Amino acid sequence: MREVAVIGAGMTKFGERWDTSFRDLCTEAGIAALEDANVAGEQIDALFVGSMSAGRFVGQEHVGALVADYVGLGGDLHVPATRVEAACASGGLAFRQAVAAVSSGMSDVVIAAGVEKMTDVGDSTDVLAGAADREWESFAGATFPGLYAMIACDYMHKYGLTREQLAQVAVKNHFHGARNPFAHFQNEITQSTVMNSTLVASPLRLFDCSPVSDGAAVVVVCPLEKAREFTDTPIKVLASAQAGDTIALHDRPDFSTMGATVAAGNSAFRQAKLERKDIDFVEVHDCFTIAELCAIEDLGFVPKGTAGKFTEQGETQLGGKLPVNTSGGLKACGHPVGATGIKQIWEVVQQLRGEGGKRQVEGAEIGMTQNVGGTGATVVSHIFRRA
Amino acid sequence: MREVAVIGAGMTKFGERWDTSFRDLCTEAGIAALEDANVAGEQIDALFVGSMSAGRFVGQEHVGALVADYVGLGGDLHVPATRVEAACASGGLAFRQAVAAVSSGMSDVVIAAGVEKMTDVGDSTDVLAGAADREWESFAGATFPGLYAMIACDYMHKYGLTREQLAQVAVKNHFHGARNPFAHFQNEITQSTVMNSTLVASPLRLFDCSPVSDGAAVVVVCPLEKAREFTDTPIKVLASAQAGDTIALHDRPDFSTMGATVAAGNSAFRQAKLERKDIDFVEVHDCFTIAELCAIEDLGFVPKGTAGKFTEQGETQLGGKLPVNTSGGLKACGHPVGATGIKQIWEVVQQLRGEGGKRQVEGAEIGMTQNVGGTGATVVSHIFRRA
Repeated sequence: MREVAVIGAGMTKFGERWDTSFRDLCTEAGIAALEDANVAGEQIDALFVGSMSAGRFVGQEHVGALVADYVGLGGDLHVPATRVEAACASGGLAFRQAVAAVSSGMSDVVIAAGVEKMTDVGDSTDVLAGAADREWESFAGATFPGLYAMIACDYMHKYGLTREQLAQVAVKNHFHGARNPFAHFQNEITQSTVMNSTLVASPLRLFDCSPVSDGAAVVVVCPLEKAREFTDTPIKVLASAQAGDTIALHDRPDFSTMGATVAAGNSAFRQAKLERKDIDFVEVHDCFTIAELCAIEDLGFVPKGTAGKFTEQGETQLGGKLPVNTSGGLKACGHPVGATGIKQIWEVVQQLRGEGGKRQVEGAEIGMTQNVGGTGATVVSHIFRRA
Repeated sequence: MREVAVIGAGMTKFGERWDTSFRDLCTEAGIAALEDANVAGEQIDALFVGSMSAGRFVGQEHVGALVADYVGLGGDLHVPATRVEAACASGGLAFRQAVAAVSSGMSDVVIAAGVEKMTDVGDSTDVLAGAADREWESFAGATFPGLYAMIACDYMHKYGLTREQLAQVAVKNHFHGARNPFAHFQNEITQSTVMNSTLVASPLRLFDCSPVSDGAAVVVVCPLEKAREFTDTPIKVLASAQAGDTIALHDRPDFSTMGATVAAGNSAFRQAKLERKDIDFVEVHDCFTIAELCAIEDLGFVPKGTAGKFTEQGETQLGGKLPVNTSGGLKACGHPVGATGIKQIWEVVQQLRGEGGKRQVEGAEIGMTQNVGGTGATVVSHIFRRA
């Protein structure tokens, strides 16, 4: 297996991008990434696109070919393009296929993109419910806020998590988002903002939930041995791990533990030959505040049941022991579902290059990502180091 | 790169499977493939599922995880599952990801599945239009029969193809389908059946068009060096090639030549180090009769403009110089879009094992597949040999 490096990254501003179509979002992020990587179209061997539900959001399938065409790779160049989907983990999985294509020797320079255009429809909650078990969850009325509310209830009951601790996850992510010029929300909030916001599915309130966003993010990878032909700051991929679980939440032995996060995390640390303490910062999948707490526990950074206190003590904020979601996370940076997994990697690239600006993690050397599909039926996790 | 072999294959009967749900189709084909490969769930490292539009056909995304769960791989085993989509080429691309996962060394035993449940909705033509350029083709009224009718008009005008020659493609594929117990249509037809059938989009009539079908197909791959632990008849993957093109037909320089088929075919023959004459039979993407003629020309088997005559002379039928679509092709075997690419490989496995029954190609040693997304924005092609 060949070693792989990220040589470029670009993203659009996330948000309600009513001025910009699905394909234009891809082009905007794609051109930014290609310029960042100093790569020309003729050098691209393959393209992978993560998108959850373009078929329902914009009536368009076959989006790999569409994106390749609109970034100028589809015609005479005949660049092969593949869409990858695993609900909100689609972006992370597109990156994983790009890593496989390079490490197998099939391809050299490969693009991994993620995109979603969600704000054009009125039934986004129903579209997103396609990530759960349609027959046994969605048809019974369970939406995603409802499913994660069940996780939160179970967790609070078992571990005594307070409402204030849960709110602090959103407060911290808005603090980070206010320092990211690409974030959907760039304003700070307080615990009372969260606790007085509209109840969505008890105990989750509006500010516990990530928003419906438009956006795209793109990264470029190549064999590590060739990376310095393109950039002085290649980012080495130390681990690429993926795990699955039952599609339905009710089939899991423990609502508060995401078994696929545990499995993918263990696999990632084994591949990277690292300890938890070696990780300088992590981007995790905070589709709801409760999900961030489960994630940092299930990845093994803190013992089960203690992530609320860890967060309350400021340890997950910039300057803390383990900065979590410096991009603003899904909560503040936004959550165009297919784009999120690539945006996490974009943020790792910024941090490891020392280009994090006002949200820079001091001395960042090693970063990690965790990207979730559904309530944890798919989890993909990567570890990166500045090469 | 490690060499890869197919060690098992299974499929459902294709057709109007109103008795069987999306997930049950997958389970039926999956169990058949696992039994054929003598593989237990504990041995599976990864699963790839090709499905074009489960989000619109059955309201379900995240179908990788769903399928893994329902074949018993999603719970404690945490098997990673990934959906791959490129319209009607989704199945072929799922197989290609499985090959990449094995050849990279990431995984050993990998499942590639394809599935579509199409007959539950009334707007399947609009769903399928998501494979074209929604904004510049579908919104303007172009359906897939319409787009392929433009190809047929252009081809007939340029090369003098007769209506009878075009009809013969369907006649020949029904002849083959009548010998495949898994085919949607198992009846023979005549040229007059085709030429007197309802006009769909001139010059294409009902019997020039592949049907809307339900079905699933599954194959299992592993490193070639381990294949004999599972089977006495491993099938070696000699080439895996993919190429792209513009998403919209109107952006191509020549309607009658599928540039991505030319590119993928050339790449496949280079990888396999073979000549065209070495191929004993081929499964190509005959979504419409005209597409089969273009395919065997663009793959280089006959000169441009001569495939009609070649077909009329019986050379593409069992016993001819190059049997094409012995499964019955999309026309007679049926076309559950995501499943078709895997079904093509299933047929190659049957033939190379000598298990083709009444449709066996005498002395078959090397087989090839060509699977198309849209009007050729994605083409994936594989070559196989009995190991």
